[in-house]
Amino acid sequence: MEILKISSRQREQIIDITPQIQQYIAKNGYSSGILTVFSPHTTAGITVNENADPDVKKDIIAFLNKKIPQDFGFAHIEGNSDAHIKASLMNFSYNFIVENGQVLLGTWQGIFFMEFDGPRNRTVWLKYISV
Amino acid sequence: MEILKISSRQREQIIDITPQIQQYIAKNGYSSGILTVFSPHTTAGITVNENADPDVKKDIIAFLNKKIPQDFGFAHIEGNSDAHIKASLMNFSYNFIVENGQVLLGTWQGIFFMEFDGPRNRTVWLKYISV
Amino acid sequence: MEILKISSRQREQIIDITPQIQQYIAKNGYSSGILTVFSPHTTAGITVNENADPDVKKDIIAFLNKKIPQDFGFAHIEGNSDAHIKASLMNFSYNFIVENGQVLLGTWQGIFFMEFDGPRNRTVWLKYISV
Repeated sequence: MEILKISSRQREQIIDITPQIQQYIAKNGYSSGILTVFSPHTTAGITVNENADPDVKKDIIAFLNKKIPQDFGFAHIEGNSDAHIKASLMNFSYNFIVENGQVLLGTWQGIFFMEFDGPRNRTVWLKYISV
Repeated sequence: MEILKISSRQREQIIDITPQIQQYIAKNGYSSGILTVFSPHTTAGITVNENADPDVKKDIIAFLNKKIPQDFGFAHIEGNSDAHIKASLMNFSYNFIVENGQVLLGTWQGIFFMEFDGPRNRTVWLKYISV
Repeated sequence: MEILKISSRQREQIIDITPQIQQYIAKNGYSSGILTVFSPHTTAGITVNENADPDVKKDIIAFLNKKIPQDFGFAHIEGNSDAHIKASLMNFSYNFIVENGQVLLGTWQGIFFMEFDGPRNRTVWLKYISV
């Protein structure tokens, strides 16, 4: 298993982790299999989305904050239930197909770490299984 | 890896891809393992849901359109940020258990391609790992 | 494949299935691989979230019920379209990394069965693939 280190700098932040993930596959010479990407947190998840226009990231964050406001009236005393819900709506684990030494992604896709309760030091876990 | 081809005919459309997936497992004689199903798009995802009453599909689409309207006031100039968000809320990858030469699904389950910015020609990627 | 049995006692209920899953890995002596956890239902899913303060679970259920009410005006005659949507927003399958004979989870994480149309007798399917 590999552990990526991530430092978020805002409460909500979408961080592109595609380069670190591709590097992990390349440096290990993995060729054909499945990669599991896992967020070991409860207020930060993983998703895939467009990596071209940065407005897409802004729209995702703005939409989630509008619909799941921190001051919704939650019971949890830490005041971050919105972040727990946002992370579950995204996802905590994702599987990617590895072929020819790289994670296969669509033309516009990037792999995103979704911070909903930063800034914090975070990790993402990677595990590869060969065919 | 196998590539399924899909042609959507509406902006939002739920397309049952269970038969093609079962066929892929059967024709390759796969018996026991894990199948990863991956959408290489940013405005179309994958989910599982009820394959019996077509009203369930209609209700899912209607609900998502009501809560995530295309004219929400998004910044992304292409005007399809709603589709990016809907796809992330569903999912871009799914894992299924394969036993006895078929993908194991619950009685009412089907595997659905979730188009949110059609009509378009799309693909779905399949990768099988044996135990 | 292993089948866990679950009995929910409320319409919406978050049930911690972490102990049964850890037991499954331990009793089989699995050491390093990937575990797929799959919900074979259409109105109950799987997610990961905080296992410490029970208010987090209450906040998740209350939020989903507020935003996706059963009386939204759905077409599906069984009257449980809200449950179908909630399950798709969570997830039906999850992948976990197994190392040193256990499922690796973050400090605060638990694996939750998400019942949205109980009370019912349910199952969760587990499949392990070794590296």
